[in-house]
Amino acid sequence: MAARTDRSGEFDLIARYFKPLAAGRDGAFGLTDDAALLGVSDGADRIVTTDALVEGIHFRPDDPPDRVARKALRVNLSDLAAMGAAPEVYTLALRIPDERDDDWVAALARGLAADQARYGVTLIGGDTVGGGADGDSGPAMLSVTAIGRLARSPALRRGGAAPGDDVWVSGTIGDGGLGLRVCKGEAAGLDAAQRRFAIDRYQLPEPRVELGPALVGTATACLDVSDGLVADLGHLARESGLAAEILLADVPWSDAAAAADYPETERIAAGDDYELAFTAPPDRRDAVREASRTTETPVSRIGTMRPSSGVRVLDRNGRPLAVPRTGWRHR
Amino acid sequence: MAARTDRSGEFDLIARYFKPLAAGRDGAFGLTDDAALLGVSDGADRIVTTDALVEGIHFRPDDPPDRVARKALRVNLSDLAAMGAAPEVYTLALRIPDERDDDWVAALARGLAADQARYGVTLIGGDTVGGGADGDSGPAMLSVTAIGRLARSPALRRGGAAPGDDVWVSGTIGDGGLGLRVCKGEAAGLDAAQRRFAIDRYQLPEPRVELGPALVGTATACLDVSDGLVADLGHLARESGLAAEILLADVPWSDAAAAADYPETERIAAGDDYELAFTAPPDRRDAVREASRTTETPVSRIGTMRPSSGVRVLDRNGRPLAVPRTGWRHR
Repeated sequence: MAARTDRSGEFDLIARYFKPLAAGRDGAFGLTDDAALLGVSDGADRIVTTDALVEGIHFRPDDPPDRVARKALRVNLSDLAAMGAAPEVYTLALRIPDERDDDWVAALARGLAADQARYGVTLIGGDTVGGGADGDSGPAMLSVTAIGRLARSPALRRGGAAPGDDVWVSGTIGDGGLGLRVCKGEAAGLDAAQRRFAIDRYQLPEPRVELGPALVGTATACLDVSDGLVADLGHLARESGLAAEILLADVPWSDAAAAADYPETERIAAGDDYELAFTAPPDRRDAVREASRTTETPVSRIGTMRPSSGVRVLDRNGRPLAVPRTGWRHR
Repeated sequence: MAARTDRSGEFDLIARYFKPLAAGRDGAFGLTDDAALLGVSDGADRIVTTDALVEGIHFRPDDPPDRVARKALRVNLSDLAAMGAAPEVYTLALRIPDERDDDWVAALARGLAADQARYGVTLIGGDTVGGGADGDSGPAMLSVTAIGRLARSPALRRGGAAPGDDVWVSGTIGDGGLGLRVCKGEAAGLDAAQRRFAIDRYQLPEPRVELGPALVGTATACLDVSDGLVADLGHLARESGLAAEILLADVPWSDAAAAADYPETERIAAGDDYELAFTAPPDRRDAVREASRTTETPVSRIGTMRPSSGVRVLDRNGRPLAVPRTGWRHR
């Protein structure tokens, strides 16, 4: 693990907070070396993804740091799941603004430790950098690179859907956006439990690390919902050379989203859900439901892939609805 | 490749500047998917490293952006080399400050393209993030994760040196620090060619990507010189449970370093050389020289590993010298 920084006590920082996260994995070498070893004697291909969270863009300065760290890891695990891979190891490049103290770093590490246990993934390296340009503190940044094992090939891709394939989505849609509204004090009509649920969904998304691998061989296309259901289905449709047509009445909502003053068309435009959206042929519905059952991950069938392009959202009468197309803002 | 950002035209940015860097590698999927595939059917273990460069810490705001990008990649390739692995693929998380325009991004990509050709490495994914906390632009940051192939096992480590092993170093020492002095206008006594040489060594270090793999099976310990020769030999000595003793008169200097008003004891404390420092038994000197010859990488024998701990620098009369121990600052 590198220590190229102006921050005093860099080695102490790594030793105290990050070395414990690398314990128990041979190839991490206790973060003492220039790099880590990824043994591949199991012969499984690997999936690699990098996603960064920047303070002020992807999280709010007053978000709890343990949750920020967990979200940084989880959005990467979600990308692995979308390709059908199970979490294995990760690296972290962490920029620590001058005004953040060791307690903040300790909280980040505590969050990572919790999620390492939850998802069976281990830190194998990284970099911590303090300071910044002279007199310019700037935002915190956590860049995670996660590597996962692809137990079966081929990997799930965004392209690959065929006309007539069903469109599916895991879990419920719009809760990330609802949680952000609650954080901003903009969501009326929720009780305390619903508010907590929504904040958890925004700050601690649950990557579908079991469903993704279980869909390999069944799903024809897959991605995770980070930019919003409509925007992400647009990516899937484009890469598949098709259109995605969904029925708004079939999109699954949480009780909290349903109770809130939160229009359905805004729920499907809000991001940060980290559910999986995927397609499969109608004759594989039983296989999809079996994957859902064995991984204890709810799934809903919400539409159909069609020739042409784009995303169409239909109301109960089969009429296309106008959907907000403004880009999702994560905070 | 993810696009979670406030910066308008994010998809355009990726399509225009980064997709071309992923061309020609199947598993990169043209950066269209959530993650990349790393096929391991060759059975070679992989080495993984993450290092970030932050504006104001590791590079100067007016450094040419193509060189900043190349350095970000090269410091990671140097870590791979230190473990004995050859470059294969990398990901990039890029934070773009608001005040940087598309030309800046284009120059970054141009630099990466040049080094991809030079080192046989391909971009397979990443993330670009613009903006920052409200009203807080903050520094640019480039976090690279590089993955390399370990053609032969075991990987080179920092620990593993034995008492009596020779201490070797590749290339010349102190040039990175000299280049930084030139950039700051602090280096007197150099002609134009020497000044250019020194700046190149600071801005465009040459990772020893061929020597590192060639040393597997010969070197007993190895790392790259980023924090300064003395500091890094201190890491090697500590992980090996030994002391490193070097003869200052045997440390190799460039003509530029020798010509400059630049004390030898400061050259061995300056970082950013990205040479390899390694140990090998005296009966493997021919093997070290053969690795040097076949990879066309100069090496010098500069000392011996001893029992006890720490780093001792001896003058021509065998007397220990005082060496500045202040931490190396990269800019």
